Amino acid sequence: MSDGLQYPRQVERWNRYEITLQGPATGNPFIEQTLSASFFPAGGGSQTVEGFYDGAGCYRLRYLPRTVGLCRFELKASFLPQLIRGSFTVTPQVTPGNHGPVHVADTYYLAYEDGTPYHCIGSTCYAWVWQPEQLRQATLRTLAAAPFNKLRFCVLPKHYIYNLKDPPLFPFPGTPVDTSGLTPANFNDYNGCPPGNHWDFSRFNPAYFQQLEHCIASLCNLGIEADLIVLHPYDRWGFSQMDAATDQRYWRYLIARLACYRNLWWSLANEYDLLPQRSLADWERDADLLCRYDPYGHLRSIHNCFDFYDYSRPWITHCSIQRQNLYLSGELTARWRERWHKPVVLDEIAYEGDIQFGWGNLSGEEMTRRFWETVCRGGYAGHGETYLNPDNILWWSHGGTLHGSSPARLAFLRRIMAETPGPGLEPWPAAQWDEVAACAHGPARQDYFIFYYSFMRPGFRDFDLGPGRFQIEVMDTWNMTITSQGYGEGRFRVRLPGRPYMAVRLRRS
Amino acid sequence: MSDGLQYPRQVERWNRYEITLQGPATGNPFIEQTLSASFFPAGGGSQTVEGFYDGAGCYRLRYLPRTVGLCRFELKASFLPQLIRGSFTVTPQVTPGNHGPVHVADTYYLAYEDGTPYHCIGSTCYAWVWQPEQLRQATLRTLAAAPFNKLRFCVLPKHYIYNLKDPPLFPFPGTPVDTSGLTPANFNDYNGCPPGNHWDFSRFNPAYFQQLEHCIASLCNLGIEADLIVLHPYDRWGFSQMDAATDQRYWRYLIARLACYRNLWWSLANEYDLLPQRSLADWERDADLLCRYDPYGHLRSIHNCFDFYDYSRPWITHCSIQRQNLYLSGELTARWRERWHKPVVLDEIAYEGDIQFGWGNLSGEEMTRRFWETVCRGGYAGHGETYLNPDNILWWSHGGTLHGSSPARLAFLRRIMAETPGPGLEPWPAAQWDEVAACAHGPARQDYFIFYYSFMRPGFRDFDLGPGRFQIEVMDTWNMTITSQGYGEGRFRVRLPGRPYMAVRLRRS
Repeated sequence: MSDGLQYPRQVERWNRYEITLQGPATGNPFIEQTLSASFFPAGGGSQTVEGFYDGAGCYRLRYLPRTVGLCRFELKASFLPQLIRGSFTVTPQVTPGNHGPVHVADTYYLAYEDGTPYHCIGSTCYAWVWQPEQLRQATLRTLAAAPFNKLRFCVLPKHYIYNLKDPPLFPFPGTPVDTSGLTPANFNDYNGCPPGNHWDFSRFNPAYFQQLEHCIASLCNLGIEADLIVLHPYDRWGFSQMDAATDQRYWRYLIARLACYRNLWWSLANEYDLLPQRSLADWERDADLLCRYDPYGHLRSIHNCFDFYDYSRPWITHCSIQRQNLYLSGELTARWRERWHKPVVLDEIAYEGDIQFGWGNLSGEEMTRRFWETVCRGGYAGHGETYLNPDNILWWSHGGTLHGSSPARLAFLRRIMAETPGPGLEPWPAAQWDEVAACAHGPARQDYFIFYYSFMRPGFRDFDLGPGRFQIEVMDTWNMTITSQGYGEGRFRVRLPGRPYMAVRLRRS
Repeated sequence: MSDGLQYPRQVERWNRYEITLQGPATGNPFIEQTLSASFFPAGGGSQTVEGFYDGAGCYRLRYLPRTVGLCRFELKASFLPQLIRGSFTVTPQVTPGNHGPVHVADTYYLAYEDGTPYHCIGSTCYAWVWQPEQLRQATLRTLAAAPFNKLRFCVLPKHYIYNLKDPPLFPFPGTPVDTSGLTPANFNDYNGCPPGNHWDFSRFNPAYFQQLEHCIASLCNLGIEADLIVLHPYDRWGFSQMDAATDQRYWRYLIARLACYRNLWWSLANEYDLLPQRSLADWERDADLLCRYDPYGHLRSIHNCFDFYDYSRPWITHCSIQRQNLYLSGELTARWRERWHKPVVLDEIAYEGDIQFGWGNLSGEEMTRRFWETVCRGGYAGHGETYLNPDNILWWSHGGTLHGSSPARLAFLRRIMAETPGPGLEPWPAAQWDEVAACAHGPARQDYFIFYYSFMRPGFRDFDLGPGRFQIEVMDTWNMTITSQGYGEGRFRVRLPGRPYMAVRLRRS
């Protein structure tokens, strides 16, 4: 093969396909060289993607194959005299858990590309990628046993309370601001782009992005979606204030590297409204670029602190919401569904823990309640954990191990979600004022109901869902039990134990 | 004394003063005879009040003396040939707990007429007056040991789920609708004024009102305000649909009998908006009448189900609110204070219990939390209890004994309220988003603070209240403990146990 070109002749559908080739290592390959390819999958159509420079003279071009059969490609590079043509075979998916990327399904729901419903139970480890190897491994071990099938985290390093250490790597060559005087009490003085940072924004540090992509691939192997936060305001290195040209190079580099992962979601920012240097036009420009360069249509959103972004923008696939109210979060899901007619993902409903801030000191009971309130209104919610003890490693940012009581309950909830026919639950229009009533979305709408009682503790409830015979199950969402109460017809009564967090499931038999 | 006139020559200030006289028992004394008196207390001014017929030829005229010293009166009656003059001495209050009626103090607060702050902790026993004697006695014993200093209850009998028995007495002579076919399943069919009721609305049943006033007097002896609900919609006897003339006779009869009790509050209605036969003009007419015939200015309000009455009406002394939201109640107190600039009394924030309805199945924890949310925003809240077991006697309506866990915590809260300098707490404008911060109202505003954390569980909190030295107390509002943490100055940290329902009290020393 000319110029060290290597490409596999076979790849499993929805697995990463990668072409590597050797090229110039001199000058500044990041901006002086270009590389792209068009892919022609079986069945027609084509996708064009950019390659990227991975250091040491190595160039890579990646593709996410979605159609079984022979796929041709045509590759060109600034350092190659001519177009290179090749082909490979896309084989059917055989790896357990390989269902393809997640997309919007039926307006309000999410499903894998193979049609399998995706019942999202997210968590958050903002800076886990930049923790020591041992801690990253612990995070992955924890995730392997946890109920979460999505993880939110940042590309860029994080400067914030409980996150004051420099990362081991930086995304650009250069030197960071001196932190010898940095303390938890004065960390706000370093916010943004303080003097002392010196970066060559015309080059990337491949090792940084290799570590990132390794983490994304590890999540993929665990069946966990990587909800990647591309920009964020918790910054002392100036990475939140890069100029437009750098931003665009950064975006294209990320897309070229990462769009090949089937588990990738794009979050343009965390708390976009805390980046005052950026205008709405900046976000829209990035979104345009993303839509242009990601040919696979990975899920795209942007996350607020205070004011919501305009989720009606066409490029936004789903609402990625931070609650705007100390008390209410999932309770407002139905309102948001009706407002935007897109999947509602409550990515931040506060975290289980005991730190000093109200966003990080929920009980496991309250965290679990917020999930149920959300799910029974046809939305999805996200978890996080912020316990100071025993190790002062806070899952919400560092990863590590979980100490809270909600994850086991979220596993129970995920099981219930998986048992729901169709893509998910939707609000049942005939709900009483004092219940959260959901039915299955779609054809099973009249056949599958969940009534959730939140903090309320009814000793019994009466039901009348019209003709038919219903299998009655009483679900204790906290103690994770399901108790059968036989069948009911017409108007019937279900006995309940007078404890909070109970639900009733009724299935037409 | 002519015509059996009897009047005491001495009365303690704020105790009931009563003149009795014999008169005609023939015909219909309720509408054929009239009786009134003007009182001229020491220090000037006068009040004119009506008397009432109490059956068996006995007429009574009652007065609430508010000024120490000689009080003259002039009495006239339709059956007396001439004006009767007399006088009596009002002596200073000596009975423990006799602080006079409660009035509005400093816009948002309540205080007794002697200036003692009134820290309202209400409860609700809608129909306790019409329960068997043994149960009424049990209610009074319970109240004697409970934290409540206000009780809401109805004049008229109640027809509602868990309240289907006929009362032992009726307010008018006649016969009630036949209830031999009445069941919990069909009780709504009897709502309003079904056929079969036959009442002589031109006469009252004195025994009915004697039992009512005995209950009010018993509460007075316990230091408990009687928040009397004059009309309500839970009716199968037609008492919610009386004509305007009957309504007005009923009102004047109540005022003549009961306004003499220092512990009386007037609630025009419970859930006024569930009485569709009555227009706003009807309520305003009743309010006019009340303002005209009650010369003491007892507290006056009206309670909603869905939509609030217009609390800005001048006759309304305080807001008597039922929450309008399944989730939020006390959290909205500050908003309502700002809207109406009157005391905010959340008389119905749902009840502790386990009945089937969302208004009656809170945990003790949630009930207590709602009280703290309210009080720390400068309002007052009301309790109720609806446990099906062990005896199916529901405190909310029947009285009896308390089974819940909130009353002990409300006693703790009442203690904290009593320790607040001035009339009460007000929202602290510099509150963080994730705390409920209150300061004392009035001169101690900068010297006394309570920070309440509700369901949140901070492991610590940092404070900076400016110059000065603050005594630090950590209050566990659920476990009812107060733990000193010494003193803090400038910016200081308070350690907290990471449990819900904690508060911090800071007092400038």
